[in-house]
Amino acid sequence: MNSYFSYNKPWILQRADPYVIKSEDGQYYFTASVPEYDRIVLRRSDSLTGLSEADEKEIWHKHESGPQSIHIWAPELHYLFGKWYIYYSGGDKDSIWDIRPYVLECKGNDPMNDGWIEKGKMVCCKDDEFSFRAFSLDATVFNACGKWYYVWAEKVGVGKQISNLYIARLKNGYTLDTVQVLLTSPDYDWERKGFWVNEGPSALIRNGKVFLTYSASDTGINYCMGMLSADEGSDLLDPLSWKKERYPVLSSSEKHMVYGPGHNSFTTDENGDDIMVYHARTEKKIVGDPLYNPNRHAMLMPVRWKDKKPVFEFE
Amino acid sequence: MNSYFSYNKPWILQRADPYVIKSEDGQYYFTASVPEYDRIVLRRSDSLTGLSEADEKEIWHKHESGPQSIHIWAPELHYLFGKWYIYYSGGDKDSIWDIRPYVLECKGNDPMNDGWIEKGKMVCCKDDEFSFRAFSLDATVFNACGKWYYVWAEKVGVGKQISNLYIARLKNGYTLDTVQVLLTSPDYDWERKGFWVNEGPSALIRNGKVFLTYSASDTGINYCMGMLSADEGSDLLDPLSWKKERYPVLSSSEKHMVYGPGHNSFTTDENGDDIMVYHARTEKKIVGDPLYNPNRHAMLMPVRWKDKKPVFEFE
Repeated sequence: MNSYFSYNKPWILQRADPYVIKSEDGQYYFTASVPEYDRIVLRRSDSLTGLSEADEKEIWHKHESGPQSIHIWAPELHYLFGKWYIYYSGGDKDSIWDIRPYVLECKGNDPMNDGWIEKGKMVCCKDDEFSFRAFSLDATVFNACGKWYYVWAEKVGVGKQISNLYIARLKNGYTLDTVQVLLTSPDYDWERKGFWVNEGPSALIRNGKVFLTYSASDTGINYCMGMLSADEGSDLLDPLSWKKERYPVLSSSEKHMVYGPGHNSFTTDENGDDIMVYHARTEKKIVGDPLYNPNRHAMLMPVRWKDKKPVFEFE
Repeated sequence: MNSYFSYNKPWILQRADPYVIKSEDGQYYFTASVPEYDRIVLRRSDSLTGLSEADEKEIWHKHESGPQSIHIWAPELHYLFGKWYIYYSGGDKDSIWDIRPYVLECKGNDPMNDGWIEKGKMVCCKDDEFSFRAFSLDATVFNACGKWYYVWAEKVGVGKQISNLYIARLKNGYTLDTVQVLLTSPDYDWERKGFWVNEGPSALIRNGKVFLTYSASDTGINYCMGMLSADEGSDLLDPLSWKKERYPVLSSSEKHMVYGPGHNSFTTDENGDDIMVYHARTEKKIVGDPLYNPNRHAMLMPVRWKDKKPVFEFE
């Protein structure tokens, strides 16, 4: 840890939906949504906190027009099926809310330097008549018992819509092998503030369990985190395998001046301890539409464990 | 029981979505969808099986045009807040799939003779921005611990849609007091045949539990029944209170020549034993679109109990 670093304080400024992965060779990578929503950036460092000072490289830029030409959101870097992939979402400047999930595949083994191939829109299973037909975003992937799963948010409904989380198994880095399964819908008041939203899933697998955190409500100070869990060995495509927490696992704290915490990811620090990477604001009063206010900053929080479940606390 | 009656055989011909209620004074009432989908009918008898021979009276006819002018479906008669109500659904002949839930209120205490007032479309809670915006139907109501609940099916999604079940608490016979809560979505293969459907809910309250059956998949021979249950004293607006059965509780039986059983309701016979009223077909091969084939017949089945849970068996 460098001397300037503090948990639960802005760590990397104006980087929302922050994502960190530690690769097999011990290198840390960071990516996130940038306020311009126009590109995908990547940083690399040999230490976790070193990412804040690392050079940021643009590895992909939005298209001029058509799909992927606006609202480039929530990239995540993962290594699966022997390759590096980046999962992200984007809209169409002529239809800005036509957000869909896309995939980049790395040409080599060095995400910073080897270049990326567009694999296009995420491909759903041939029997799936529902996935990626509406506003869909925030994909993450995880491996449980040797199988890869893809979890994403997608809106349903006519008129005003509701954002749910879905899961499916992956066939390869850019294709689903099974039809969608609904994991969670905004059931409670804390998931229904401003908008009815479940999004930003992230998996943490420990103690034989899959803990799947997600974010809820609108992107302002109501934004908060919920959690599902399942036995790692259970059928993760069966909703009965999953248990949802009745209350948020993390929400705004006036005392700590942390507002709208969410859209997290998980990594481990140099000691092997679990660290949550998330974004939050330090201002209670948000100027303008929260989606276009740039002051969501990446922060870090050590994950504590209680009764074999992760606990998220500002101090 | 009259001598012509057999369980799990056609009891009242060409009456789908059959519904029976035994009133406080011991009279039995029957209503159902008629093949023409153009009217609401009612029968009364002093015995359950007597309903098959009872005169059928039309108590309401579809409108000439506009809402409620086509596809009049699944009426149910209930007594709540001191009045008789009929819950049903209907479409608009100029937009036949704009199905919405409607309510009739009886002018007096005699459902057969006192006439009915149209209360119009079911009114959702003022904070509810989602309910009854899309194809919504099959409402039922039940009372648990002194509170009335309304459960209905509504489709979500763009393009091809998915029919889910929702619950809310009632403020009066035609107004919801709370926003919608998602109870179940078609999660399993048996709920996803032809169409992804959960519909036709019906509550049975026994042994301190609410058993909520529903129907799944398309209206043909894939149609089958699933079940949820909750403790009667739990928060029924909390999805965590509900447990879904992994497998259907009733489905087609070649041996018994019963195809596509579902859209049931519950009543008690003259001995106080629980009886399920449901529809099914006796032909495996359905001529034409199942929705417009008239041969869904009302049948009766005694409800058996095992480990304090209802069991549905053809023999």
